[in-house]
Amino acid sequence: MYEGVNASEGIGIGTVVVAAEPDLSFEPHAVEDTAAEKARYQAALDTFCAKTQAQADRMKITVGENEAEIMSGHIMLAQDPGMTDGITTAIDGGTCAEQALVETSTMFENMFLSMDDEMFRLRAADIADIRTGILAELLGREVVDLSVLPAGSIVVVHDLTPSMTATIDKENVVGVVTEVGGRTSHSAIICRALEIPAVLSVSNACGALHSGMVAIVDGINGHVINEPDEQQLADYQERAAAFAAEKAALEAFRGKPTVTADGEKKVLACNIGNPEDAKGAVDHDAEAIGLFRSEFLFMDATSLPTEDEQFEAYRKAAVTLKGAPVIIRTLDVGGDKEIPYMNLQKEDNPFMGYRAVRYCLDNPDEYKVQLRALLRASAFGDIKIMVPLVTCVEEIRSVKALVEECKEELRAEGYKFNENIEVGIMMETAAAANIPDLLAKESAFFSIGTNDLTGYTMASDRGNDKVAYLYSWYYPAVLRAIKNIIQAGVKEGIMVGMCGEAAADPLLTPLLISWGMEEFSVSAPSVLRTRKVISQWTKADADALEAKVMQLETAEEVKAALTEAAR
Amino acid sequence: MYEGVNASEGIGIGTVVVAAEPDLSFEPHAVEDTAAEKARYQAALDTFCAKTQAQADRMKITVGENEAEIMSGHIMLAQDPGMTDGITTAIDGGTCAEQALVETSTMFENMFLSMDDEMFRLRAADIADIRTGILAELLGREVVDLSVLPAGSIVVVHDLTPSMTATIDKENVVGVVTEVGGRTSHSAIICRALEIPAVLSVSNACGALHSGMVAIVDGINGHVINEPDEQQLADYQERAAAFAAEKAALEAFRGKPTVTADGEKKVLACNIGNPEDAKGAVDHDAEAIGLFRSEFLFMDATSLPTEDEQFEAYRKAAVTLKGAPVIIRTLDVGGDKEIPYMNLQKEDNPFMGYRAVRYCLDNPDEYKVQLRALLRASAFGDIKIMVPLVTCVEEIRSVKALVEECKEELRAEGYKFNENIEVGIMMETAAAANIPDLLAKESAFFSIGTNDLTGYTMASDRGNDKVAYLYSWYYPAVLRAIKNIIQAGVKEGIMVGMCGEAAADPLLTPLLISWGMEEFSVSAPSVLRTRKVISQWTKADADALEAKVMQLETAEEVKAALTEAAR
Repeated sequence: MYEGVNASEGIGIGTVVVAAEPDLSFEPHAVEDTAAEKARYQAALDTFCAKTQAQADRMKITVGENEAEIMSGHIMLAQDPGMTDGITTAIDGGTCAEQALVETSTMFENMFLSMDDEMFRLRAADIADIRTGILAELLGREVVDLSVLPAGSIVVVHDLTPSMTATIDKENVVGVVTEVGGRTSHSAIICRALEIPAVLSVSNACGALHSGMVAIVDGINGHVINEPDEQQLADYQERAAAFAAEKAALEAFRGKPTVTADGEKKVLACNIGNPEDAKGAVDHDAEAIGLFRSEFLFMDATSLPTEDEQFEAYRKAAVTLKGAPVIIRTLDVGGDKEIPYMNLQKEDNPFMGYRAVRYCLDNPDEYKVQLRALLRASAFGDIKIMVPLVTCVEEIRSVKALVEECKEELRAEGYKFNENIEVGIMMETAAAANIPDLLAKESAFFSIGTNDLTGYTMASDRGNDKVAYLYSWYYPAVLRAIKNIIQAGVKEGIMVGMCGEAAADPLLTPLLISWGMEEFSVSAPSVLRTRKVISQWTKADADALEAKVMQLETAEEVKAALTEAAR
Repeated sequence: MYEGVNASEGIGIGTVVVAAEPDLSFEPHAVEDTAAEKARYQAALDTFCAKTQAQADRMKITVGENEAEIMSGHIMLAQDPGMTDGITTAIDGGTCAEQALVETSTMFENMFLSMDDEMFRLRAADIADIRTGILAELLGREVVDLSVLPAGSIVVVHDLTPSMTATIDKENVVGVVTEVGGRTSHSAIICRALEIPAVLSVSNACGALHSGMVAIVDGINGHVINEPDEQQLADYQERAAAFAAEKAALEAFRGKPTVTADGEKKVLACNIGNPEDAKGAVDHDAEAIGLFRSEFLFMDATSLPTEDEQFEAYRKAAVTLKGAPVIIRTLDVGGDKEIPYMNLQKEDNPFMGYRAVRYCLDNPDEYKVQLRALLRASAFGDIKIMVPLVTCVEEIRSVKALVEECKEELRAEGYKFNENIEVGIMMETAAAANIPDLLAKESAFFSIGTNDLTGYTMASDRGNDKVAYLYSWYYPAVLRAIKNIIQAGVKEGIMVGMCGEAAADPLLTPLLISWGMEEFSVSAPSVLRTRKVISQWTKADADALEAKVMQLETAEEVKAALTEAAR
């Protein structure tokens, strides 16, 4: 058995197909006729772009619109002037096209990698993928084609590049195993979208597994079982059936209201990163958007998005939700989110630095562009403004004063907007958890950001493996912070939600019900499951469990008690 | 008037002497006879070391033993094999001695600067100072000599290097102004030790002030007044007299017990960094050591200090305190404290990373060396063990288990130690502030580390200027955390102290009295003043102020109320 990252749920049993990487080796050589070499590069680039466009078109049907955009993004990146200029300059210097491509693309790849942000790591992977594609064209070789596999195939590959996933035939591929990539890699995103069980980062998978072997991909636990015995096969067939049954059972919660076992109404919302995701959220039966991360609008751009560009994005999400609430978090730049054109200084401890509302209040003119866009979009749906990283009442008061300034301007300019637009707080700092009573008086709602709240409370960077054991919301210190926030919000009569990953943790659900939390904002695929878990608990049962759990002293005891009580 | 950093308290009125830097320019040239050039370098180095040793000897008498060690440190650094090897290699390559020195020392200086830690910045300043000294020898030029100044001199200099301070005549110098350096620079440390008023980081001071000018150095507020008028002179003469009177009045508290106005006994302790400081603490009338930062033993070494070396340091401090408590914090490596030979990985957010007790519990064999040394030293005084950065009961339980293991070993080996040695917690994380009741059950005492507690609570790196406005213990979120910790400790009946900078903040003293804090651990020069402030408050007055302040919502309101009530 091999262990890896459980990147896409489900169990696949089938026959291994090891997808060999194409041999893209070449001899770098000097060129004399640089014009001809540039033309040769341009031809390869054109063919690559045409093929990629065809893949994107196909993907739009087989996988989905958002995923197809990854491929369209490849075309734009490949044609990026920075990249092509670098390559033509190298060719002008007498370098062959292959070498010019490898040098320039590697430079860009390393630049993205050095930015050390998930978003840019994906971009680096894109560049590597483009390099492979254009290089294959230059050398006249074929890249891996996953469109012609026999039924019941388990694809084993070093890395599932976006261009490979474009050719994957969902009907025939029952599992995917890769040697690299995490839960947020392209491979993971695509496999989840295609609902193909996947285990990633299995070291030496291409060497250990051989084409023709029978194998089981357990995407739930991140296990790959090679050549299973009969007992294992029977066991996993049973598990696969149970998984399918559970999935089918979840469908019973589609279109249903979110209520506890004793009929208390809750709201099941979705976290999204761009206006297109709003449609996915509605498709997954979300009742609202609990967190629209507006920074993706900024990260995908090469300069600050204009008021009109932002307005359009927010309006689109609001319209898609047809009047249901859309909570939009204002720019959460800094920390682990870098936006190159903003030229923020490198900090020793970016998580404890100049970020989010701190940056925004220090740059009120930039911030007002976003606030004006949000206000204008509020004429088209129930948009609410959420302020990240608040640590004191001063900050939320300052933001509200800026919102009032923007309202006055928009009134004078004749724009329509929701005069009563709600301004709320993302509760994610230890400070906020200490003064929720004071903040509740200044805030229309709270949404608990458990990711940062856990990190700040435990003084543990979630990206740091060495202290990952401390990054857990099962520690009593974190649970008390969450409880304190929810109860203070409830007492003040404001809506309290949660948009961190803990909102989708079924073990925590009874505690959140006990404390009176109203809105659970989760990723699209977790909507139905979270609705189901909520339906299994009465307030009385949740209270009894809460009383027991909150007396415990260690994270291990807490997790064990919650696991034992889980339904 | 010029503004700068108030680095050493007091007011000096006198005549400016601008100490010009020596002209150390030279023409780099190639050398043929490299053996002769190396001999020339060696001669300059030897002269430099001999002069520096003489300065150190003199300084031991005029300034103090610790300060003299800075000069001895220079000799060791100048003779460091890494440095001399670099220089001789460069000379072997045909570079002249001057250029070889500048290149090699600059490389080391930049390396230290890049480490971005106060400790290493000091080391970088040392290297610059050594370079100046040896270069002056090579070029046959004189460095600044501050030993021959007329009475009533105000020294104005770009940077007060350790070698300059060695020559300063305390009798004749009434003030110091520099263009660079902060409160923790060598210049600041020396000026405070010599009790010379100093204002540092006054930009262009050497250009703006001229020799012969009358000036006032206000080291209390960080102001330099050039050519004061009669009114200003009279005003500052009055202030200088008041400062002297206040200082004399504080002397009335020497040798007295620390008690509130209604007779409640408190403990006034000192924070120290090495066993030699223990004597200074006693000299400043401290009743105990509230924080011995053991990491300085590790930072001053080139490899892990042995059990015997550590034992000796701890024993020395314990003996100096003659039975009074000495709380020794176990190794607080990581965060902003790097120890090169430990080879810790660079982290994105070191404050939220692998540091302090996390490192120690992950390296129990190394940690046990320190715990054994502490136990052995406990036979010679009242040593208590303090564990930094605790976030959960699991950690303190693990440390206590290791202490028991060490006790068993030491018993078997026949060592004497205090069987009832106390193990306590440095309360400095948001998590610890959330679960003080749970931690109090596991801990013999608490000491609140307000520096980190403020930083973690407010998610604000104290070293980051951009968010410095959030780094304040006047925010209600921080005050509540402190209150929660003190009251939980008091309720459980354990000793609660504070060793962060807030312990010496006279504005906070009434709140700490109201909450029942027992021990105030401050820097040596703050002992008498803190004792005086404590003597000015009854519990009832403190409670009344507390009730008023803890209802306030902003840091500004809190500070204003505390300032208004200050005595």
